[in-house]
Amino acid sequence: MTIRHVLGDWGTSRLRLFLFADGGLVDRRDGPGIGALDRPARTVLAEHLAPWQQDGPIDTVTLCGMAGARGGLVEAGYVACPAGVEAWRGQATWLEVDGSRIAVLPGLRSPASAPVPDIMRGEETQIFGAFALDPALARGVHRLVLPGTHSKWVRVEDGTVRDFRTFPTGEVYALLSRRSTLAGPQTAATGTEDDPDGFAHGLARSDEPVLGALFEARAGQLLDGRSPDWARAYLSGLLIGAEVTAQALVDDGSEIVLIGDPMLCDRYARALAARGRRSRTLDGETTVLAGLALGRNTP
Amino acid sequence: MTIRHVLGDWGTSRLRLFLFADGGLVDRRDGPGIGALDRPARTVLAEHLAPWQQDGPIDTVTLCGMAGARGGLVEAGYVACPAGVEAWRGQATWLEVDGSRIAVLPGLRSPASAPVPDIMRGEETQIFGAFALDPALARGVHRLVLPGTHSKWVRVEDGTVRDFRTFPTGEVYALLSRRSTLAGPQTAATGTEDDPDGFAHGLARSDEPVLGALFEARAGQLLDGRSPDWARAYLSGLLIGAEVTAQALVDDGSEIVLIGDPMLCDRYARALAARGRRSRTLDGETTVLAGLALGRNTP
Repeated sequence: MTIRHVLGDWGTSRLRLFLFADGGLVDRRDGPGIGALDRPARTVLAEHLAPWQQDGPIDTVTLCGMAGARGGLVEAGYVACPAGVEAWRGQATWLEVDGSRIAVLPGLRSPASAPVPDIMRGEETQIFGAFALDPALARGVHRLVLPGTHSKWVRVEDGTVRDFRTFPTGEVYALLSRRSTLAGPQTAATGTEDDPDGFAHGLARSDEPVLGALFEARAGQLLDGRSPDWARAYLSGLLIGAEVTAQALVDDGSEIVLIGDPMLCDRYARALAARGRRSRTLDGETTVLAGLALGRNTP
Repeated sequence: MTIRHVLGDWGTSRLRLFLFADGGLVDRRDGPGIGALDRPARTVLAEHLAPWQQDGPIDTVTLCGMAGARGGLVEAGYVACPAGVEAWRGQATWLEVDGSRIAVLPGLRSPASAPVPDIMRGEETQIFGAFALDPALARGVHRLVLPGTHSKWVRVEDGTVRDFRTFPTGEVYALLSRRSTLAGPQTAATGTEDDPDGFAHGLARSDEPVLGALFEARAGQLLDGRSPDWARAYLSGLLIGAEVTAQALVDDGSEIVLIGDPMLCDRYARALAARGRRSRTLDGETTVLAGLALGRNTP
C-alpha cells in the first residue's frame, strides 16, 4: 500500500502544502497565510487536505511556521537556543484534523543569556534543512541570513542554532512602500520595484542613520523628478543596506549563507557585496522541504 | 466697519481655521486634513468659510501647510533656503474661493548646496512665528526641532532658515503602532501610549541601529508578557531616541528649541535629556498663528 504524507509551510502570508507518495513529491497546493485567514485555521487546513484525502488516507501532515503561533492552528511553543534538530523535532505538537494526524513543529527562542528576547517560526526548519542539504554547514561556525518579512541573522555552530537577531525589514518596507507618503502612489504600471538606480542610491545612503535618510524618497520625487518606482527601490536599498550595515558592525567578515527567495536574496547579496562581504544563496523552498522531511520523523 | 480675516493651518491630518475681527480672535473651526479629503479642497474650504461669510465679508484668508502641496488647494511652490520672512511671504499664491481672496504661503526647500533634497510645508510658518514671539531666536544661530509626522531639525541664523533635515519618525511610528505585527492589537482599552517603562526601555535601546531593535516590541509580548501599550511606548521611545541620537552626532550641544504639540514635545525633551541635551518648548498652535499673522501682510 502506498504511504502518503504531507509537508507544509504555513507562514504569515501563505500556505504551501506538498503531497508525497512513497517518498516522492506528487502534488502541491497553495493557500492563504495565517495572517490573512477569515475562518479558523483548522477549517482552512481541512479544506485544503480534503481533495487529497478523497484519493486515500494521509499518514501524517507535518507543518512549520506561523501555524504554531498563538492564534494559528495550535500554539506550538519555542525551543530555547542553543537548539539542535533532535530537541526541535522532539517537541512537535500533535492534533487531529478530519482523521489526519497533524504535527506542528515548534519555533526557536533566543538563549536565556541573550540581552534581548527574540523568536523565530519557520526559519529554523530552513536552517535544519540547510544542514541536511549541505553537511559542511553543520560543522563549525557559520553565519546564515534568512531575508524576509522578519529577517533573521543566525549564528550556527556544529549543527545547532546558537543565537539570532530579527530585523523586521521586510515588514517596514511593505508599510513604507505601500502605505506611507514617502513612496507615492503605486499604479498598475509600477510595482516591479527593480529600479537599479534607486536601489543603488538607497544602498549608498545606508551608512547614515536610517530615519534621517528615509525622507529623500519623497523629496526626490517632489524636487528632482524621481518616479514612485525609483522611490520604492531607494527605500529597499536603504533598508536592506541599513540592516546589513548594522550587522556588519558585530560580524567577523566570513562568508554569509543566504536562505530564501532568490530575488530577495540577490538584493541582500548586492548589499553585502557593497560592504565587502561574500555570500552564497540556498533556495528557501528547497531548504524548507528538507527541514520538514527531518521534522517529520517525530515520535 | 469691522475688518474680518481668516488665518488657517491646513496640514496632512487636519484643517484649523481662525476668524479674526478687528485684529482679535473671535472664532475657530476644525476640519479634515489635505490627506483625508474625499472632495476637492476648494469645496471643503468653501463649506468651512460659508457660515462666517453669512455674517459679513471676509477680507483675506491666509493658509499655510499642505494646502500648498501638489494635489492640495493650489500648488504654492517652495522658497530655497537660506530663506527669511520677506522672501517667504512675498511668494504667496493667490486664488479666489466664493468671493474670498485666499493666499497660500509657500514651503521651503533645502539649499542648492545641500547633499540631499529636502522640503517643508507649514513648519516654516511656525519658525517665523517663533522669531516674532521670541526675538532672541532671530539673532545668532539656533537649533529648532519641530516634532511631528515629518519632524524637522532646523538651523536658523539671524532670522533666516539656513538648512534642515526631515525625519519621518511620526509617520513610521503611526504605521508600526497601528498596522504592523510588532505592536499587537490596539483595543479600546489601550491607546494612551504613555507607558513610561516602555518609553524608557525604547529610549535606552536607541543607540543601537534602529532596525535591529524594533522586533523587541513583538518578542517582548510573546516571551516576557509585555502589553501592547508597552510595545507601542517602546516603539515611540526607540524611534524618537534614534532620531535624537542621529542628530546628536552632527550637533554642537547648544540648547534646542522644540516647537509643536506640548505632549509630543515632552517626549522629545525626555529623549534629548537622556542624551544630555537641554531644551525648551514653544507651543505649536501659538507659533503657527504668529507666523500666519506675519504671512498675511502679503502684497
